[in-house]
Amino acid sequence: MKKVVIESVAMNGGVGDHSYANNSSLQRSGFEAAKSLIHEAIMEKLDIKHLCNGKSFRITDLGCSAGPNTFIAVESIVEAIEQKHHSEGLKLPLPEFHVYFNDQLSNDFNTLFNSLPLERRYFAAGVPGSFHTRLFPEKSIDLVCSLSALQWLSKVPEDVVNMGRIHYSNAPSEVMEAYKGQFSKDMERFFDARAKEVVHGGLMVLSFPCIRDGQPYSRFLVGVFFSLLGSALMDMVKMGKVDQTKVDSFNMPFYAASPKEVEALVERNGHFTIERMETQNFPILQGEGAIQVYSKHNRACAEGLIRQHFGHDDEIVDELFDLFSNKLSEYFSILEESSMNFVFVLLKRKQD
Amino acid sequence: MKKVVIESVAMNGGVGDHSYANNSSLQRSGFEAAKSLIHEAIMEKLDIKHLCNGKSFRITDLGCSAGPNTFIAVESIVEAIEQKHHSEGLKLPLPEFHVYFNDQLSNDFNTLFNSLPLERRYFAAGVPGSFHTRLFPEKSIDLVCSLSALQWLSKVPEDVVNMGRIHYSNAPSEVMEAYKGQFSKDMERFFDARAKEVVHGGLMVLSFPCIRDGQPYSRFLVGVFFSLLGSALMDMVKMGKVDQTKVDSFNMPFYAASPKEVEALVERNGHFTIERMETQNFPILQGEGAIQVYSKHNRACAEGLIRQHFGHDDEIVDELFDLFSNKLSEYFSILEESSMNFVFVLLKRKQD
Repeated sequence: MKKVVIESVAMNGGVGDHSYANNSSLQRSGFEAAKSLIHEAIMEKLDIKHLCNGKSFRITDLGCSAGPNTFIAVESIVEAIEQKHHSEGLKLPLPEFHVYFNDQLSNDFNTLFNSLPLERRYFAAGVPGSFHTRLFPEKSIDLVCSLSALQWLSKVPEDVVNMGRIHYSNAPSEVMEAYKGQFSKDMERFFDARAKEVVHGGLMVLSFPCIRDGQPYSRFLVGVFFSLLGSALMDMVKMGKVDQTKVDSFNMPFYAASPKEVEALVERNGHFTIERMETQNFPILQGEGAIQVYSKHNRACAEGLIRQHFGHDDEIVDELFDLFSNKLSEYFSILEESSMNFVFVLLKRKQD
Repeated sequence: MKKVVIESVAMNGGVGDHSYANNSSLQRSGFEAAKSLIHEAIMEKLDIKHLCNGKSFRITDLGCSAGPNTFIAVESIVEAIEQKHHSEGLKLPLPEFHVYFNDQLSNDFNTLFNSLPLERRYFAAGVPGSFHTRLFPEKSIDLVCSLSALQWLSKVPEDVVNMGRIHYSNAPSEVMEAYKGQFSKDMERFFDARAKEVVHGGLMVLSFPCIRDGQPYSRFLVGVFFSLLGSALMDMVKMGKVDQTKVDSFNMPFYAASPKEVEALVERNGHFTIERMETQNFPILQGEGAIQVYSKHNRACAEGLIRQHFGHDDEIVDELFDLFSNKLSEYFSILEESSMNFVFVLLKRKQD
């Protein structure tokens, strides 16, 4: 089987009907739930005296996409730090904030920059590149935030044989194991890079889709999406519109870890302490409107990968997502029984 | 007369036939000439022990456009610092470099990021915004470089009445004075912002088109370009294709200062010492090929402003630059008699 290396996952750019900017309300709800935890994390765990010692305070959002969720996240972090600073009655002046918005090279930074709030309280920069690699100089970051991004693998595990499916949900266990192995390698690189970049005492706030221990993948919302999208692709194979081998060699580079796996990976890396960890459950959308939201959400996230692999034929892409919408209707009862969880982790950089 | 505020000057984006990326060889020759001066400046004036004291070395290129000249400039700066570090036999390890590529919000950062050299020796970030405003936290930059950018005014001076022309060349002296006043205000804001951002002992390397004392504007190459472009626009007025009032209210926000003016502005600001200053003369292109190069160069730089003001009609823009090319042919002898100079200034941030 042909090896498939996904070079980069980028959400749809621009501000059009299919853009991520206009179809990221699900991620927004993920963020809204993380927001109060981030606020608490900063109030309780940020050593503001040590970190704001006469220099600017440097924040990065890793996997920020093209907005607007990233701006809400950053704004709320800055607000919490200001509140913490105020509550401690420090004599030090409030630091200036430098915020680095990071995402893949193929992210639409032009849209990101043009959506930057005009009245922001920070200096902004964009940083193109994979967060599985080094992005910043040593000891230059005070707070890392990454929301709804770490579930994206750097690539599909190379030796996956996954006939007629595009994900490990409903796949043989060796497919699942290969994904698990890739996630583990990716997180190792992620933690190694951040361990160099984050100052001692610096915080890292991570939140991404997870699976609860024992939860079957057949009832994990995103797994259901990918099963239905794979099924829609197979329908197109039957209609002679898509090549079967193309489907066999396509896999979504998405992995939902369990909190236990995340904990083990942090411990193996050894440079961070877990200050807080919890899972959050998200309500599944109900009613007819849900189908359109889910369909557009999946298109904003997956269209780039699909075009890279299957070609840039608009008609094929439109038809695929029409079929996908029909599948969502047909299997709506399964969606309603599924669940969607996020793991929230607060890490602190240890003294070496 | 209607006031015209030019919101932002951005070179043409992308990598197409009319792009700045493919039509910036004139700026490249400007940079090539500055290159050896930059190298000397770093070797002679950079206090490497003070600036590389266990932290990363932060460089910004202000007005970088979409490449490729900016990468050559930055590469050569990094190389010079490495050489300086080596030549002093310092025990400190070579610092990591963090490079901030800055340009207007309307700059094509997607093209810039996708053109970043893969084998670079620095961490890269993009910073959108006008360099006439603050872009970075206090004392966060070690070396500022700005090549072929400071000639662009933040806006056309507001009360300019400049019938049938698009620039101060060949215009009444009050037009010229208004431009001079705007340049002076802009540079004041530029130096004030940089004075906050650059660390004590940090360097600032500036190079931009200038006029030699006593040189008539009628023989300043860029002034000749704008006279001919204005004349081409007036031809289109006569042909009924462009509205006269539109031409009257359009002015290129470009100013070529004299070295004496620059010196006075640095002194008035008071936060920098002039470590070196010289003017460099550029050979005027000869032969038929020159016309095409000049025409494309002007289009890559001016098309954005023209479209903002006159509308986005491709036919009008194409016809304008065809007429402009004809004018370049017709007045080629004037171009051959003209001259093009750049001022190179090396500044050092004083201790307050």
